[in-house]
Amino acid sequence: MKAIILAAGLGTRFKSEKPKVLHEILGKPMIWYVLNYLKQSSIVDIGVVVSHKKEVVMETLKGENVSFFEQKNPKGGTADALLSALSFVENMEDYIIVVNGDAPLVKPDTMKSMQRFLHMVEEYEHIKIGALVLSSFLPDPSGYGRIVKDGKGDIVKIVEEKEASYEQKQINEVNGGLYFFYVPYLKEAIKYLKPSEKTNELYITDIIEVMTELGYVCRSFMASEITEIFGVNDRWELSFAESVLKMRFLEAFARKGVSLHSPESIYIEPDVNIEQDAEIFPNVVLKGNTHIGKHAKVMNGSYLENATIKEKATVLPMSYIKNSVVEQEATVGPMCHIRDNSLVGKGSQVGSFVELKNAKLKESVMAKHLSYLGDIEIGNKTNIGAGTVIANFDGKQKHQTYVGQKVFIGSNSLIIAPRNIGDNAFIAGGSVITKDIPPKALAVERAELKILEDKSKIKDE
Amino acid sequence: MKAIILAAGLGTRFKSEKPKVLHEILGKPMIWYVLNYLKQSSIVDIGVVVSHKKEVVMETLKGENVSFFEQKNPKGGTADALLSALSFVENMEDYIIVVNGDAPLVKPDTMKSMQRFLHMVEEYEHIKIGALVLSSFLPDPSGYGRIVKDGKGDIVKIVEEKEASYEQKQINEVNGGLYFFYVPYLKEAIKYLKPSEKTNELYITDIIEVMTELGYVCRSFMASEITEIFGVNDRWELSFAESVLKMRFLEAFARKGVSLHSPESIYIEPDVNIEQDAEIFPNVVLKGNTHIGKHAKVMNGSYLENATIKEKATVLPMSYIKNSVVEQEATVGPMCHIRDNSLVGKGSQVGSFVELKNAKLKESVMAKHLSYLGDIEIGNKTNIGAGTVIANFDGKQKHQTYVGQKVFIGSNSLIIAPRNIGDNAFIAGGSVITKDIPPKALAVERAELKILEDKSKIKDE
Amino acid sequence: MKAIILAAGLGTRFKSEKPKVLHEILGKPMIWYVLNYLKQSSIVDIGVVVSHKKEVVMETLKGENVSFFEQKNPKGGTADALLSALSFVENMEDYIIVVNGDAPLVKPDTMKSMQRFLHMVEEYEHIKIGALVLSSFLPDPSGYGRIVKDGKGDIVKIVEEKEASYEQKQINEVNGGLYFFYVPYLKEAIKYLKPSEKTNELYITDIIEVMTELGYVCRSFMASEITEIFGVNDRWELSFAESVLKMRFLEAFARKGVSLHSPESIYIEPDVNIEQDAEIFPNVVLKGNTHIGKHAKVMNGSYLENATIKEKATVLPMSYIKNSVVEQEATVGPMCHIRDNSLVGKGSQVGSFVELKNAKLKESVMAKHLSYLGDIEIGNKTNIGAGTVIANFDGKQKHQTYVGQKVFIGSNSLIIAPRNIGDNAFIAGGSVITKDIPPKALAVERAELKILEDKSKIKDE
Repeated sequence: MKAIILAAGLGTRFKSEKPKVLHEILGKPMIWYVLNYLKQSSIVDIGVVVSHKKEVVMETLKGENVSFFEQKNPKGGTADALLSALSFVENMEDYIIVVNGDAPLVKPDTMKSMQRFLHMVEEYEHIKIGALVLSSFLPDPSGYGRIVKDGKGDIVKIVEEKEASYEQKQINEVNGGLYFFYVPYLKEAIKYLKPSEKTNELYITDIIEVMTELGYVCRSFMASEITEIFGVNDRWELSFAESVLKMRFLEAFARKGVSLHSPESIYIEPDVNIEQDAEIFPNVVLKGNTHIGKHAKVMNGSYLENATIKEKATVLPMSYIKNSVVEQEATVGPMCHIRDNSLVGKGSQVGSFVELKNAKLKESVMAKHLSYLGDIEIGNKTNIGAGTVIANFDGKQKHQTYVGQKVFIGSNSLIIAPRNIGDNAFIAGGSVITKDIPPKALAVERAELKILEDKSKIKDE
Repeated sequence: MKAIILAAGLGTRFKSEKPKVLHEILGKPMIWYVLNYLKQSSIVDIGVVVSHKKEVVMETLKGENVSFFEQKNPKGGTADALLSALSFVENMEDYIIVVNGDAPLVKPDTMKSMQRFLHMVEEYEHIKIGALVLSSFLPDPSGYGRIVKDGKGDIVKIVEEKEASYEQKQINEVNGGLYFFYVPYLKEAIKYLKPSEKTNELYITDIIEVMTELGYVCRSFMASEITEIFGVNDRWELSFAESVLKMRFLEAFARKGVSLHSPESIYIEPDVNIEQDAEIFPNVVLKGNTHIGKHAKVMNGSYLENATIKEKATVLPMSYIKNSVVEQEATVGPMCHIRDNSLVGKGSQVGSFVELKNAKLKESVMAKHLSYLGDIEIGNKTNIGAGTVIANFDGKQKHQTYVGQKVFIGSNSLIIAPRNIGDNAFIAGGSVITKDIPPKALAVERAELKILEDKSKIKDE
Repeated sequence: MKAIILAAGLGTRFKSEKPKVLHEILGKPMIWYVLNYLKQSSIVDIGVVVSHKKEVVMETLKGENVSFFEQKNPKGGTADALLSALSFVENMEDYIIVVNGDAPLVKPDTMKSMQRFLHMVEEYEHIKIGALVLSSFLPDPSGYGRIVKDGKGDIVKIVEEKEASYEQKQINEVNGGLYFFYVPYLKEAIKYLKPSEKTNELYITDIIEVMTELGYVCRSFMASEITEIFGVNDRWELSFAESVLKMRFLEAFARKGVSLHSPESIYIEPDVNIEQDAEIFPNVVLKGNTHIGKHAKVMNGSYLENATIKEKATVLPMSYIKNSVVEQEATVGPMCHIRDNSLVGKGSQVGSFVELKNAKLKESVMAKHLSYLGDIEIGNKTNIGAGTVIANFDGKQKHQTYVGQKVFIGSNSLIIAPRNIGDNAFIAGGSVITKDIPPKALAVERAELKILEDKSKIKDE
């Protein structure tokens, strides 16, 4: 089966230079979710109708293996958009799915159920359905197209809010904007379609009425959740769609054995993976290709982007980790900043106000307070004192530092990169290290401590 | 048209020494919201009835240009409060709005609609309405006064929960506590009012029954949202009102083209402004006169109070900015602290664990790690190393420091203020700077580095 | 009255090695909440039926003073579990409460109301109720056991979802899984119980039908909130239960006079106490035995675990406090880290990027920026400069430091512990302190500052 996504809309209510379908939900363009639920229900041959800012849409979808069709007149209406893509279904004797690019909340399971329904109709009633329309019953249907049915429960027509009579407005079943059309019937019906007298646009919804007049059966299929039929027309609705999708991802993880605290406060993007028995606390942010291992904990307010947190590791509150790895049983935070390809080795501890940048800490390294460790490798069991800074930048370029195993770097030390510090070396607190330090050596840079018993005599500072 | 706000209530359920109407919602006293929706619907001549802790209420509203009336007996009831302010409407032949000071959720649009409704009644029915009562239909009306109507839909009376019969309790339409009274009818009716037998108080709601007995028409006007009729009687309801108002502000910004992620998690105060295409992430706090420019981003968990974030600037997660400005294309955070009239210049970067206090960073200044920069001006393209501290306080007073352009301040440097560092100067890492440094000079304060090959011989530390 | 908690279930949908009833809600095992509402309604004689991983459950409940009973066959069904504990009610002529260990949301008040109801039935109808079943009416009852009643309103039987007829599925009243059984009737009825044909299990719900056949009256008692009857069968439901309990705690505090901002974003555990007029801001985390005093403020995103914040103290945003005390009128944060038995004295200030570990700051101590203060006592009115580090660890062990009153510790100082710094001492910025400093002395460790007018001549770094 093929599908056509209508992505030509202007989206004026977004008040944006960016095309509507490219506005992002959980870090992905809205249309990505439409492609995703189609692909998850085994639809791979997909056409996209573009018009407004078509280059940007096409560029964004470059890697998605879809065919593009251009609607010449962006104000031609939805059926005009569909007509632009009719070459996509030439000679097809099958159903085609037509869906709006601003409907990101349909579930793959619903798509599959609709396909099964069409098979059953074929098997038991020996007919093709002209149009199968996704619908839902809303307590307050205002704003939506109403589905008008006959006594047998087949659809007679879909009436837009602004064209609905008082009686039609009482109908609670509304159009979800996703259709399975039987292509031969669609091609026949679309010929008879007339533009709206009010707007001069051709509407897909009017195809239904033409079909029923031609004697083809049209039916509705109820969404499993009301949210599925929700379209996104401005940024407030975009926020809502984001919340719905986020909660679906989180619910799936909880059902698989992940412990979540206040899931409504957790932000998660679709490529994140969390393993069983991991525990995620309130206000955590999980972005990009983040991976949380078994029995790992990510505590309150921490921000992870493309982070890998391995088994039994702990991320204490308010930590920021980006493009980095925290190995098994390591502990980081609270309030640490780990970035740019850093690695916190097994059992290592990175504490508060410590920044790692392109830093590899091997096993059981301690860097617990107030340090900046940039462009560095640190061996097993080394201890980094509070206030340690690696001066990796000389004003012109960055340099690399190597620190061996079981080194003790005293507090408030400054290591001017590039530098090698040998295994078991000891650097006295407050030293500026401008030379390489051999293994087992003690290095100290310190002036004489002067104590003046009566400080009132001192003038300088 | 004039309005009277009843702000005499004791508010015992708040369990507070502060008068009820001064409890804050989004940083403003509750009564501010009442004044605000009156002013937004062009009501500027406003009387406020005070009693309990009247001095505090009057002091708080000092700049608001309202008239005060004192209710002598704070337990006299709502109609007694209204009587205290009757001199405010002397000789008026117009409607007067009477509203509770604890009803902050009425919308200005609803006020305007009620005014239009009164005009229409006058035009088409040629009558004055005795009382037009804001109402709503609640699924569960318990606790609210019920609106009893006759066959024509006019109000007969309002019955309080505790005095309602079983049948009256089934009524779903409830009193919203906001009234438009026609002053001549009000003055006539209020004379016949009798105190409640149970409490000996005079109730505004009883005025309706008197009016209908006198032959004046009373009607209800349905609020556009249920929340509008919500009164705030304790701090739990205060929290609810805060959430409602917050979401209204956020929705308005989203509809205008601001991108919001998880808006329910964002805190925003009424004086905040956000321009189109700005993007606000979850758990952000926007307080006071904060202004977010076009295409600016404020990321997760950041706290902004009286902050100006200009076009295309980025506030990374967990940053704290107060009374300061971040210029175009600058980037701050994650986890920075910017306060007290600081300025981060165009394209400058302030990174993690950096605190600015009364610091002006001109363009393209880098201060990316672990620094305290207080009482300082820094020129273009200067680089501040990690661990840099400006010692702006000598134990007695604060001093000012000037750093020129293209200066390189090495890591872990300490600059004892007051100090001037000339353009293009270079301060070696770990130096304590106790003198002014001329332009292009190199300054270094450092002892000799001693390396002892066998550290076991060392005793000191 | 006695109670039996059924805690033998496998909880396979939790996908966990931990027994279901030990999964935590707000830091306590789920079964703790069941014990808690029983104890709060004066039930102290409690039996717990265990089976799956019984040792772990028994170990967890060690201090709770309950009797344990083992269900030999963990797949024997709920009535089989009850049978395992029948010795607990031997010779009893009273009601016994039977409740599931996975039903943490029942309210103590509901328990008390059920007890009163049984007394009233006895007084006015002179009968014992065979079974009084907690129930609720759900808009969507699917998944729950339906309560089938006769014309008088007595229960005929309880039908599980999977065994319910189409008509029975329309019943909205569902079984809440909490029962008061009259012991003599229970013992009689349980003899006639037959295992389910489908699962071969014995079900408690089937006892009702046997009782009514024996002529005993069974009734339902409506929960005061729908949430009370909610059982926890997987981790998504666990998150939901956590949210419900959290909001109940917060509502109770708000009603008592605590100001809460966005309470849905606040995390609170059951042992936390907050006094009147305290103010808690969004995204705050309050864990363990945390205590917040009168007029104290805890601001956005701060994390407190076993923290005591005294009267009028302020915790600024994004602070982390664990096992420590902040005294009256002290201010900490934003972004500070206070832990391990630290104390911030009256009127003291601890600012951003400051970590305290086992640190006692007496009154009016200032430590406002970028410091690590570990294993230290600091006297009144001492000022700690930015970048100060206490080197409390020498690579082998921790040492203690004492700093007197009115000491001035210059910025970027390093104090090598163990050390004594006398009252009124002055330590010049950037010094490494390796000796004790007498009172009033000035200490300085600093090399000569060299200024080279033309930095291009310098090679080193």
